Amino acid sequence: MSKEIISFIKEIYRGWRDVNLHAPIFVGNEIAYLTKCIETTMVSSVGQFVDQFERDLASFTGASGSVAVVNGTAALHTALILTGVKPGDEVLTQSLTFVATANAISYTGAKPVFIDVSEDRLSLCSVKLEAFLNKCKIDSEGNCRNPQTGNIIRACVPMHTFGHAADMDAIVRICHSKNIKVIEDAAESLGTRYNGVHTGLIGDIGVLSFNGNKIITSGGGGALISTDGDILKKAKHLTTTAKKAHAWKYEHDVIGYNYRMPNINAALACAQLECINDFLKDKRTIAEQYRAYFATIPDIKFFDEPLGSKSNFWLNSIIFSSERDQQRFLEESNASGVITRPIWVPMHKLDMYSKCERTEMAVTDALSSRIVNIPSGVRS
Amino acid sequence: MSKEIISFIKEIYRGWRDVNLHAPIFVGNEIAYLTKCIETTMVSSVGQFVDQFERDLASFTGASGSVAVVNGTAALHTALILTGVKPGDEVLTQSLTFVATANAISYTGAKPVFIDVSEDRLSLCSVKLEAFLNKCKIDSEGNCRNPQTGNIIRACVPMHTFGHAADMDAIVRICHSKNIKVIEDAAESLGTRYNGVHTGLIGDIGVLSFNGNKIITSGGGGALISTDGDILKKAKHLTTTAKKAHAWKYEHDVIGYNYRMPNINAALACAQLECINDFLKDKRTIAEQYRAYFATIPDIKFFDEPLGSKSNFWLNSIIFSSERDQQRFLEESNASGVITRPIWVPMHKLDMYSKCERTEMAVTDALSSRIVNIPSGVRS
Repeated sequence: MSKEIISFIKEIYRGWRDVNLHAPIFVGNEIAYLTKCIETTMVSSVGQFVDQFERDLASFTGASGSVAVVNGTAALHTALILTGVKPGDEVLTQSLTFVATANAISYTGAKPVFIDVSEDRLSLCSVKLEAFLNKCKIDSEGNCRNPQTGNIIRACVPMHTFGHAADMDAIVRICHSKNIKVIEDAAESLGTRYNGVHTGLIGDIGVLSFNGNKIITSGGGGALISTDGDILKKAKHLTTTAKKAHAWKYEHDVIGYNYRMPNINAALACAQLECINDFLKDKRTIAEQYRAYFATIPDIKFFDEPLGSKSNFWLNSIIFSSERDQQRFLEESNASGVITRPIWVPMHKLDMYSKCERTEMAVTDALSSRIVNIPSGVRS
Repeated sequence: MSKEIISFIKEIYRGWRDVNLHAPIFVGNEIAYLTKCIETTMVSSVGQFVDQFERDLASFTGASGSVAVVNGTAALHTALILTGVKPGDEVLTQSLTFVATANAISYTGAKPVFIDVSEDRLSLCSVKLEAFLNKCKIDSEGNCRNPQTGNIIRACVPMHTFGHAADMDAIVRICHSKNIKVIEDAAESLGTRYNGVHTGLIGDIGVLSFNGNKIITSGGGGALISTDGDILKKAKHLTTTAKKAHAWKYEHDVIGYNYRMPNINAALACAQLECINDFLKDKRTIAEQYRAYFATIPDIKFFDEPLGSKSNFWLNSIIFSSERDQQRFLEESNASGVITRPIWVPMHKLDMYSKCERTEMAVTDALSSRIVNIPSGVRS
């Protein structure tokens, strides 16, 4: 069975020497824009491409603006600070995520609390979230308190796994009813819309990533997006060392961060973003080919876009019926040059997060040993 | 007087449209290497240029290795964690520094303690450091305790201001006698040697920056250097999300950081580093021109390289005899297209650090209102 699937994947990527999981492709103005950076010497902290990318990204997503930063982790960290997360607070997120989500929470001095994911979306389960928060009370200052620890639950970070939108309407409704801010980790979901709204713009603030394995890349990069201009203004200040505007004076008014995206990375991002509609189209075609193929394969389920999500199909995923089958397929595909990978080890199984509070993890545990991501990169 | 100095600076940069403080110049393989990144699609987290830059940088500085990261602030933060700095600790540094030094200390949850600088080096004053540490005692576990607060003083971060080496022999001797680790903030001193040893390699670990205003640039970038291979291995792990090595499994063993330098930035860094000896030579020539000129100007002192320091002359500095003269020169030079700037507002005068413990600040206060950095970029 593995052999047949591997052949099919090779057929989808016919003519490719290496069938990577998600290699970037450069068919636009990348070299031209990079050359312009060198010729104008504007490669670093200021430059036209940073401004242009922030405008273009806002325009593509429908945000009122965006702030380009050095990577998705930095964007998450900034978003958490801006929603008021402080040392000793708690932040809800899913256990089934890339480690950056939990790490960024730790950087603020807060503790992550892990919620299970739902089987239909692979993202934070709104039913288990509601059950967890029903036990929490609002204190006299309007803060939601975890009765187990007495700590304030300040924010919730759903992650749009593999580019499929989380159950945002329910999550936002539940969180806001408890005065909890919602940060959307949309690192994987650039191009994904939820009921017509771009992911990242449904909660209070959204975070994107342009790492090399993402749908578009700036080498390393990330961004904050929002419909709230005030929060973006604060994000810009905080990510540029909180320097007060002055022609020559170096003065800073809070502890800031050196998180701005360099102009040379923004140049790459601009060229890539110009191609995104073509990329999204090809990714949808690839997903359609996989969907049709796996419909014919017994005991393997192709994970399709959930209700309300027009997904970017960042990484296509198949679900085996057992861990044994998953492991066999991982071994055989990687050995034959078709790069596949399992989902991340869930956060509650990592040493440093194993003692964090969590809901029961039935879905996370069941899925994490059976999912495989298969090659999903744009072809040309 | 200002007019005459401005004319002299314009003469040094004859033929330049804008006389910036320190613009990068690109006369090597920059475009070729960037193009190679695009053609091979290796722009992000792995790639040959990251490896090559880490090797070339080690070779140039004489380090046993180096770890390329996203910027100097990230390198400082990593160095502090690796020397064991923890929340509640204290870290000594100079008040006269760029804000990144103090911010990185804050990121660890430690508190900065500010030491004055010395007039002859503009960097952390070893005499005042010794006086401060003489009041501190080693506890039964070997930690140096601040008697005022009872906290552990874990590390000391001298910064090689404007590329002139700090008084490293004394600083290392004093700190090591109190079991305090020494992190050299060599962000400004790539190419500067202290008694023949590259700055960053005298203490326990060194930190470099390749921001756009530095002697070489990678757009944004930084590095850790050391003669201790073990600490570099740990730095690599910590700055690459602490992911355990595995062909496809995503597992992480500590709270790590997404601090690695993208390959596209490393490509730029490689091309720039190939030119550094030429850059250092021209910067020395510029310093010689300024030295000779300001020797003829009354009431203005050219800041020259201190004892034992073969400086990179990153930013040439002149010292006025009054704040009034400094302010007038800043106004007139910037108004006439010759970009100059004062030294940073000292850390103990910034709101967020104004309550931190400090030594008396006679030299910092006197100098910070009288120094001006003048254009110092390489010419061709």
